[in-house]
Amino acid sequence: MVDAPQQKLQCPNVLDAEEFRRQGHQVIDFIADYYDRMSDYPVHPSVTPGFLRDVLPTDAPRRPGPDAFGSALQDVRDLLLPGMTHWQSPRHFAHFPASSSTVGALGEALIAGINVVPFTWAASPAATELEMVVVDWLGKALHLPESLLFAGGGGGTFLGTTCEAILCALVSARDQKLAEIGGNRIGDLVVYCSDQTHFSFRKAARIAGIQRDHCREVQTYHGDMFALSPTELQAAMQADVDAGLVPLFLCATVGTTQTTAVDPVGELCAVAASHGVWVHVDAAYAGSALVCPEFRHVIDGMESVDSFSMNPHKWLLANNDCCAMWVKKPCALVAALGTEQEYILKDAAAEGHGVVDYKDWTITLTRRFRALKIWLVLRCYGVDGLRDHIRSHLRMAEAFEGMVRADARFEVVTERHFALVCFRLRSPEKLGGEKTANQLNRRLLEEVNAATSGPYMSSANVGGIYMLRCAIGSTLTEERHVNDAWKVVQDRASAILRKMEIIYSVLG
Amino acid sequence: MVDAPQQKLQCPNVLDAEEFRRQGHQVIDFIADYYDRMSDYPVHPSVTPGFLRDVLPTDAPRRPGPDAFGSALQDVRDLLLPGMTHWQSPRHFAHFPASSSTVGALGEALIAGINVVPFTWAASPAATELEMVVVDWLGKALHLPESLLFAGGGGGTFLGTTCEAILCALVSARDQKLAEIGGNRIGDLVVYCSDQTHFSFRKAARIAGIQRDHCREVQTYHGDMFALSPTELQAAMQADVDAGLVPLFLCATVGTTQTTAVDPVGELCAVAASHGVWVHVDAAYAGSALVCPEFRHVIDGMESVDSFSMNPHKWLLANNDCCAMWVKKPCALVAALGTEQEYILKDAAAEGHGVVDYKDWTITLTRRFRALKIWLVLRCYGVDGLRDHIRSHLRMAEAFEGMVRADARFEVVTERHFALVCFRLRSPEKLGGEKTANQLNRRLLEEVNAATSGPYMSSANVGGIYMLRCAIGSTLTEERHVNDAWKVVQDRASAILRKMEIIYSVLG
Repeated sequence: MVDAPQQKLQCPNVLDAEEFRRQGHQVIDFIADYYDRMSDYPVHPSVTPGFLRDVLPTDAPRRPGPDAFGSALQDVRDLLLPGMTHWQSPRHFAHFPASSSTVGALGEALIAGINVVPFTWAASPAATELEMVVVDWLGKALHLPESLLFAGGGGGTFLGTTCEAILCALVSARDQKLAEIGGNRIGDLVVYCSDQTHFSFRKAARIAGIQRDHCREVQTYHGDMFALSPTELQAAMQADVDAGLVPLFLCATVGTTQTTAVDPVGELCAVAASHGVWVHVDAAYAGSALVCPEFRHVIDGMESVDSFSMNPHKWLLANNDCCAMWVKKPCALVAALGTEQEYILKDAAAEGHGVVDYKDWTITLTRRFRALKIWLVLRCYGVDGLRDHIRSHLRMAEAFEGMVRADARFEVVTERHFALVCFRLRSPEKLGGEKTANQLNRRLLEEVNAATSGPYMSSANVGGIYMLRCAIGSTLTEERHVNDAWKVVQDRASAILRKMEIIYSVLG
Repeated sequence: MVDAPQQKLQCPNVLDAEEFRRQGHQVIDFIADYYDRMSDYPVHPSVTPGFLRDVLPTDAPRRPGPDAFGSALQDVRDLLLPGMTHWQSPRHFAHFPASSSTVGALGEALIAGINVVPFTWAASPAATELEMVVVDWLGKALHLPESLLFAGGGGGTFLGTTCEAILCALVSARDQKLAEIGGNRIGDLVVYCSDQTHFSFRKAARIAGIQRDHCREVQTYHGDMFALSPTELQAAMQADVDAGLVPLFLCATVGTTQTTAVDPVGELCAVAASHGVWVHVDAAYAGSALVCPEFRHVIDGMESVDSFSMNPHKWLLANNDCCAMWVKKPCALVAALGTEQEYILKDAAAEGHGVVDYKDWTITLTRRFRALKIWLVLRCYGVDGLRDHIRSHLRMAEAFEGMVRADARFEVVTERHFALVCFRLRSPEKLGGEKTANQLNRRLLEEVNAATSGPYMSSANVGGIYMLRCAIGSTLTEERHVNDAWKVVQDRASAILRKMEIIYSVLG
């Protein structure tokens, strides 16, 4: 069948231990050098679309030259890194952090090196068992209720992202509900969130076949600090019931993306329960803070939720990617996502031995051994170490907030719950006051981010108010970076106000 | 808000360059030593459920001791590795390979070290642009039609797994169809595959809200080598149309999981086209072989498919995880999976500059910089190197097949297309003949896999025939491992036949 040039049977050297050692040490030094030089890079490159595509060849090489690996690393340094947004920069304050640690990064290296595929227990027994142990370790460290842990009859797993977690939970809830009301009523199902809920949820709802106009985004208000109101939720659910529709699923958020608003989980669960609605809590960012006991209050009432997810890759030193998901009833996941035939076998095995086949818990069958990374992070930093890490960012955020409050030209727009500060420049009356405030702050953000060695921040636009977001959470961020960031904001604000005053005085 | 013990603002050392260097070199040596010692491990551990859970502590440590990292690595060596299935073992012939290379593994290390989150172009411009370039490089290397490449108006991306790829394609097709026929007709949609199609597809269909009984698994036959018959597909689609249902989606497979059957893509596309059906081709395993021009014929007619996916992590040296997906009309993906508001912005940007925001192409928003790994693999091994790699496995599979054929006690059950050999022991007439063949081969597989330093194989059960699967594709596999594996199979077969003859002679 194969008509190829004659060669010896095996391919040379592509997984040779000595070659791995040689190239591996190169890569380690490369990454360490990158961390060393991190401060030299502008956080965000000033490049235009096409800058890289236009210079790369249009085809892969046929036969690489000698030291192709060294020359590729050189291209990473010279071509790619200058065009990256450096999420590990101590001056990266945009979005949410992509939390890195030496152990998290090396955990990934170890996972890739060992390269097993633990889709069933048998496909790599130690990997499945470690996952079951570590997901309980993490759940306990985060003060989750026992009902979500294997130890309490629930259970968890490690996925890639929150969107996957929500989709798994939603599909489980959907199939459970359709089994009750009839498989042909998918068009009657309605899902709920707030207007602050991350787009992941609407994406998951669409993927799961929920009608696009059956996703209720309950409006939130500045007065409630943009938290989802149980009263409004109840009204929305009742209206749907009255219209003959079927409330299915609520996605509550602890720490929304725009302003880290905290939905009142306990009260929302009570509303949901009265309508037989599955409650998922998305704590993608803020979940990491639950490692500190002083945050336990934000998950009051969590005993009633059906599923919970958070991303250790966001703020728990676990490097991209890792989302942890826990559910109260793993059997609902398996019923929705399991392989039919093996489902029966698996249950029997689980009854006897208490192990799971994770392929039946998630969207994907192939999966990475993410538990190894989380285990290493917990082993090497310990629960106390993770608390120190979170608290150091909280203190820096508190300090930043204090500086904003101390400058009367600025205001902190929403209450700070975690390590995100949402603030804006007040627009002076003589420059148009509230009418020009959004425009003024857009310009401020642009100029702050344009400063080559300055901070990189992002924005929120909530309830009509445009604000700057300073999310402190990069592992390399120190007090001085926060102080410098604030100085850049002040300087740019002064310059903008000065310019605008001149323009206004000339015009007016 | 935070009432924590007083400490300095930043957390010590968790992303310190020197610490990374020290621990990183340890990890590299650890992995290299693992590769060196790979042959010493039994491929599959003889452990029982609970073996690891029972010995691990029930809680994460509070404050780790000195050299926690070194001691964790020791536990990986002493506790975890002995309980793993060693997918990189040269004697791993089960499932499909989880293809490793030094460059693939180190690519993952580099991705984790740099740790950017390229969900939009702006979130890391070089990452998005590299992905666009490399996905075209790979598509060209695999001889895909231009219609699927960015260069030809299509485009591709790197995901985690095939299930994600199929789900993205299916949701795009579904929403496109519902826009035509009415959003409330999801219950009328029908999807098609063969009884050999991987479970991923049924899983994706369930997730997407297709009714469970609307997934047609067209029966295949030994006479067709278990390929999907266009005639039977046409009959199935016509029956659904006649019943007032709406054919939506066909998942064809190039290289099925059980026996690497190849569905006739071109003819199937013609049938699908007549019903307005989206065609996805899943070449998860065999797609890697397309790098060799001698396999171009298996994708004859590919110009008509709407989407195509394959897993470089299976057989293209790319380490877990990476699935490459290409689509003919990226706009269908964006319409189904994009963020509403930004959708408009994105389109404008794309028109002007030809870049994409990959968050709108996939299920997940957070994503890893997988393109870096594929770029390194293509850069360092080159297209010719990848051909050598694939052909070396093909030659070994050919040799194994020859050995099976040379022993009259055995038979090769299905035609070998790639590097999987499906074979079984014939059951002698005096031992019950065909009636006992499945049982005999089950026992043979058990005994082969029980040999401590023997090969690890898996099984297929197709058309009522149970067979052993010998999938050659581990990077470390050499001719001698294949020869040794065959000797173990022969020895075990001889022993089983001898024992059974004694039993039969005593009984009879």
